[in-house]
Amino acid sequence: MLSIQEYQEAFISYLKDYKTIKEPKNLYEPIDYILDLGGKRLRPVLTLMTADIFNGNYKKALNAALSIEVFHNFSLVHDDIMDDAPLRRGEETVHEKWDINTGILSGDAMLIMAYQLFENYDANTFQALAKLFSKTALEVCEGQQYDVDFETRNDVTIPEYLKMIEYKTAVLVGAAMKMGAIVANASEEDQNSIYEFGRNLGIAFQLQDDYLDAFGDPKTFGKQVGGDIIENKKTYLYLKALEFSNDTDKIELTQLFNSNPDNVATKIEVAKQFFVSTGSADATKQAIKDYTAKAFLGLESLNISENKKDLLKAFGNNLMNRTV
Amino acid sequence: MLSIQEYQEAFISYLKDYKTIKEPKNLYEPIDYILDLGGKRLRPVLTLMTADIFNGNYKKALNAALSIEVFHNFSLVHDDIMDDAPLRRGEETVHEKWDINTGILSGDAMLIMAYQLFENYDANTFQALAKLFSKTALEVCEGQQYDVDFETRNDVTIPEYLKMIEYKTAVLVGAAMKMGAIVANASEEDQNSIYEFGRNLGIAFQLQDDYLDAFGDPKTFGKQVGGDIIENKKTYLYLKALEFSNDTDKIELTQLFNSNPDNVATKIEVAKQFFVSTGSADATKQAIKDYTAKAFLGLESLNISENKKDLLKAFGNNLMNRTV
Repeated sequence: MLSIQEYQEAFISYLKDYKTIKEPKNLYEPIDYILDLGGKRLRPVLTLMTADIFNGNYKKALNAALSIEVFHNFSLVHDDIMDDAPLRRGEETVHEKWDINTGILSGDAMLIMAYQLFENYDANTFQALAKLFSKTALEVCEGQQYDVDFETRNDVTIPEYLKMIEYKTAVLVGAAMKMGAIVANASEEDQNSIYEFGRNLGIAFQLQDDYLDAFGDPKTFGKQVGGDIIENKKTYLYLKALEFSNDTDKIELTQLFNSNPDNVATKIEVAKQFFVSTGSADATKQAIKDYTAKAFLGLESLNISENKKDLLKAFGNNLMNRTV
Repeated sequence: MLSIQEYQEAFISYLKDYKTIKEPKNLYEPIDYILDLGGKRLRPVLTLMTADIFNGNYKKALNAALSIEVFHNFSLVHDDIMDDAPLRRGEETVHEKWDINTGILSGDAMLIMAYQLFENYDANTFQALAKLFSKTALEVCEGQQYDVDFETRNDVTIPEYLKMIEYKTAVLVGAAMKMGAIVANASEEDQNSIYEFGRNLGIAFQLQDDYLDAFGDPKTFGKQVGGDIIENKKTYLYLKALEFSNDTDKIELTQLFNSNPDNVATKIEVAKQFFVSTGSADATKQAIKDYTAKAFLGLESLNISENKKDLLKAFGNNLMNRTV
């Protein structure tokens, strides 16, 4: 087993070889650009790590890991168009730097290229990877659609919200790990257990993201703190605050999340006070702990050494104690 | 072997069973809508017919045929966004009826669903179909990018134009037929020969489309006659007219195709006169004949009966003598 940093380095070096400008330039340059913007490379690292955990060779999982990363970046390019986002990882988004049509078409190409990366495996592995990939990719689309739908709905329930983040974020974490297990020829039972570990960890990860968006340290948090509040996003924090509010507070909170004031600082402060006073902030922290615990519990049945289980737990705990 | 109409009916009845509204509605309703708009179903019919030609069972090719049709409609949805097209087959385009974000996301889902349709085949067939599909789909994206690039270029050559229509249109016709051959377990040589037949026929088909856009009968041609001229599209007709023009005509023709007059009727008339007087119209008709002949020549080496070769030729001739 390598360290997280070593997996990252192995992946980044493999990614560098993958990137070659092909013709037509206007199709492929944006793909190189977005793949080069960086990020934590969390998902591909999980694929490589999982292959090693099941006594595979992480090097055999590099193409699957790359596929996951190319797909993730495809979804960022198309989501950024839909959200009209000017920045991604502090740099211009593809549709800002080029235009919307380039963003659509380069994104389409990336989705296809993600499938092509499976061609390096034998027919049975190819089919197993591609099937899992298609199921997951369609769920990510469904999650994105729910997210869009929720923007104009005032009656989103917490189970609906959890399903949305599960589809939009968590299933890809589960799939990234299951792909490592598939390449390593792990048993079907182990494949499914590691998928569940990743899926639950992914939900905890997204809830943590929601929490940090309001309560993160502006010095270390990558995005603008309070961004979700400014955009009236109905996150777990907001939905729990509504649930815990009395009728008067409910009206005030609903109004606050239908407003677009010039002074965002006050709005953020008021929203955060609501999140704390209603107990929603604590409930969110508890939900993060619960999903992490659920993920860890699923590890028990895995046919791997205790050492390796501890490694996965350390990775999970590290992720949940992050400030970025 | 069935008749073309019977293949069409078999396909449409299979397509009807495929369409079931799933959640979220805003993702899947646009997919049903576009798949229901009709069209000649040319590509899937070719897949079914080819399976039968190689002594396969067309019923086994239905999922491959459906995949081709779903992909074709994916590309229409995304292309219509890029071209800002209000109408498709006389009805509102997806992004007009819903919005651009819906068009992007529903299109993405269709691309994934096209891959999922291969899951009904065994691992080796799955891999062969998905590999061909990925290669073809990426070429279609490249063709679309060249088409976009050509809009703002004044130095497009005829070989470049032919490559663009090959990628944007013809390779999908070749792939549709090759998929039928793959499902029927045809030899690799036969698979490649039928692909070449489809590819050359596809180029002839697109040149015919260019020709009919200017010289088609408004009563039977589905689109607005002269549409390419109004939009200053550098089609084969235009590029050949430029090639055959003297210096004075070259300047006039170039100016005409950089103009956007209110009176489009005069512009269309002048352009058509150029196409006829320069000999470009005749050269285009000749190119259609040449590519059709090239397609037919490729049939010679196929290990199928003369009867079946005649059937394919009849299909090709029918396509090239169409007025729509």
